[in-house]
Amino acid sequence: MNNCGALAILSPESLGKFAPDTAQSLIGLSVNDPRVPTPSFLIEDEKLEKNLERARTRARELGVAFRPHLKTHKSIVIARRQMTSPEGPATVSTLSEARYFAANGVKDMIYAVGIAPQKLAEVARIRALGVDLKIILDSVEAAKAVSDFCREHGTEIPVLLEIDVDGHRSGLAPECDELLQAAKALQDGAGLAGVLTHAGDSYECKSIEAIIAAAEGERAGIVKAAGRLRAAGFEVPIVSVGSSPTLMHSKSESGVTEIRAGVCAFFDLFMTNLGVSKKEDIAGSVLATVIGRQTTKNQLILDSGFLALSRDRGTARQKRDYGYGLVCDAAGEPLDDGRIILAGTNQEHGILTLPGDSSLKLEDFPLGTRLRILPNHACPTAAPYKYMLLVRNGIIIDVLEHVRGWD
Amino acid sequence: MNNCGALAILSPESLGKFAPDTAQSLIGLSVNDPRVPTPSFLIEDEKLEKNLERARTRARELGVAFRPHLKTHKSIVIARRQMTSPEGPATVSTLSEARYFAANGVKDMIYAVGIAPQKLAEVARIRALGVDLKIILDSVEAAKAVSDFCREHGTEIPVLLEIDVDGHRSGLAPECDELLQAAKALQDGAGLAGVLTHAGDSYECKSIEAIIAAAEGERAGIVKAAGRLRAAGFEVPIVSVGSSPTLMHSKSESGVTEIRAGVCAFFDLFMTNLGVSKKEDIAGSVLATVIGRQTTKNQLILDSGFLALSRDRGTARQKRDYGYGLVCDAAGEPLDDGRIILAGTNQEHGILTLPGDSSLKLEDFPLGTRLRILPNHACPTAAPYKYMLLVRNGIIIDVLEHVRGWD
Repeated sequence: MNNCGALAILSPESLGKFAPDTAQSLIGLSVNDPRVPTPSFLIEDEKLEKNLERARTRARELGVAFRPHLKTHKSIVIARRQMTSPEGPATVSTLSEARYFAANGVKDMIYAVGIAPQKLAEVARIRALGVDLKIILDSVEAAKAVSDFCREHGTEIPVLLEIDVDGHRSGLAPECDELLQAAKALQDGAGLAGVLTHAGDSYECKSIEAIIAAAEGERAGIVKAAGRLRAAGFEVPIVSVGSSPTLMHSKSESGVTEIRAGVCAFFDLFMTNLGVSKKEDIAGSVLATVIGRQTTKNQLILDSGFLALSRDRGTARQKRDYGYGLVCDAAGEPLDDGRIILAGTNQEHGILTLPGDSSLKLEDFPLGTRLRILPNHACPTAAPYKYMLLVRNGIIIDVLEHVRGWD
Repeated sequence: MNNCGALAILSPESLGKFAPDTAQSLIGLSVNDPRVPTPSFLIEDEKLEKNLERARTRARELGVAFRPHLKTHKSIVIARRQMTSPEGPATVSTLSEARYFAANGVKDMIYAVGIAPQKLAEVARIRALGVDLKIILDSVEAAKAVSDFCREHGTEIPVLLEIDVDGHRSGLAPECDELLQAAKALQDGAGLAGVLTHAGDSYECKSIEAIIAAAEGERAGIVKAAGRLRAAGFEVPIVSVGSSPTLMHSKSESGVTEIRAGVCAFFDLFMTNLGVSKKEDIAGSVLATVIGRQTTKNQLILDSGFLALSRDRGTARQKRDYGYGLVCDAAGEPLDDGRIILAGTNQEHGILTLPGDSSLKLEDFPLGTRLRILPNHACPTAAPYKYMLLVRNGIIIDVLEHVRGWD
């Protein structure tokens, strides 16, 4: 075992041609320019803006604050366009995001993943920067751990109790005894800031009516939880709900103070299958290059595999299975009336088969042809890229850093 | 649109608590130490060494050179332990890997993804560093593009013709006319260095006998292609085959000069289902923390979701479906005789259900308990981490950088 030298020559050169800063040289180039590397993650600026405005408008119509979930893009540039003020409010999914957005001036955040006791020291460190970072938990055990930490360290950490409205994942049932016990267990610097839920089962809805019902279930559940806490004498300033489907289709958020949503900044094929977006709304895509063909199978081989597109196959259980994504031309227009999907991927290869009756032929795609793939799921697709390229009319207008990792 | 400020305050602090260099402070800590963040990617040093030695031994027994595929770990420290010399030979899947390993002294590499013409400038730039980086292609069109590039730039690029032995993905059929045409189309600085194939369909085999047959098909196909080229007057110095299943089970590599393999450095649940490895051989795992429980559903919630474990569900079509991974204790021992899997994930949440007849109860997992998850597929799981932690007897003995991205 040689520990020496492992990191000795770590440098931008050894790590890549482009870091987010050197990639600024891509601004002004067409997505068809050979200097633009593939695979790259593209964001259509006009679609992004329309999506951001739609979410803000929905929140305004519903009369609640909008606390966007920044996990989809993890970029301060997009966050600033998405949030109602440069200081927030916002939602994050990792402490890495919390630290990054804090360093970029965001001051009101909820870290919306149940807290582990070991992470409290880092939460306190970020809060000491003057950031109101709130945490969530869903048990007496966790409430005691946070209270113990705050007492031992003489610090304050605001806590939202996570509520389970649909059996999706985490949270306390609105009617359970432990809800009140957990609130009581918040002592010393661990203060109850509110309640929070996520109607995650809205992702499984088969109709808009079902999403509307999920939204009402989300609202009713959290309002019930808040009501029981208030009846027991607790103040509950924040009543937070959210998922992209319920934000888009909720009829009322009476009793709710704020709504969170993430993927609606980009949308994707999963959301399109769900009826929450249209294909034309999808702002994020992967730029790829044709690197080969298999004539006997009528197949093209692309340089975008599952690292570039993620292994997400969420559309496999929906009304249309898009494989690993919908194939478009370099301008983002679906090929052959949207009939062509990326059916297979290996780590760095994508494979698409032209339908036998397609108007397109393999010869229409010379080696080096650039295509765009609309992804099944925006969040895991965007995450591994070193930077994201903001595009307008086929020209790169900005290069966006985004944060990654967990610590 | 505000382009300014996007990258202005990009700094280690804004990007995370630990970069690969600052994470060196984790060396010497137990994986149970709260300072070790979760999720983290762990590599068991002894299992890694055994796996590396097994692959080298197999290649030696088969009488061929070993050219490991570095895409699984993308780490120079592991590459140096894996390669037969510090200078190679090696295989890479991105130009980012090629540049990184070149900067770290590796001099003999094959970039084993069909070349796109736009990438030739970067190939030439890396070769100009004194590195023998070879490329692959599978068409006359690509051969002409490389020849044109070499002529225009007065440079040399060695080329291997990719051969398709099993209809898996890319490549020229050993018996096709285009094989000889492509060789003839290599002109000027574009020189034929050999032939290369990957028996990717060996991943779909249902028995060891089927893998043995796939290995023989791989060998026979490439030898046939090399023979036809030689009969036509071409020199074919490199005859390269490889996949982890065929390396492990091949009976003969007569006529082959080298073998490539990647995932056999770590192994994973997919390879275990295939019969190529045992659970005890799996060297890579994800360290996670219990952050909640759902008593009515007998579920634990972990802080490792699909970004930490990848969306890879390859085991879903195999003899045992492991969900998103096999759950082990912090020492890496499968819980409850290997019966507990991570059945569900969201972006940052993992969900496991204890079987009703399990010897384990939710109370055995207090908040903050650390667990390890063996992944379905090592390569996409390891890729997104900022660094990987090398572990021996539960103690972190090294922090490994690895390269990411494509450009």
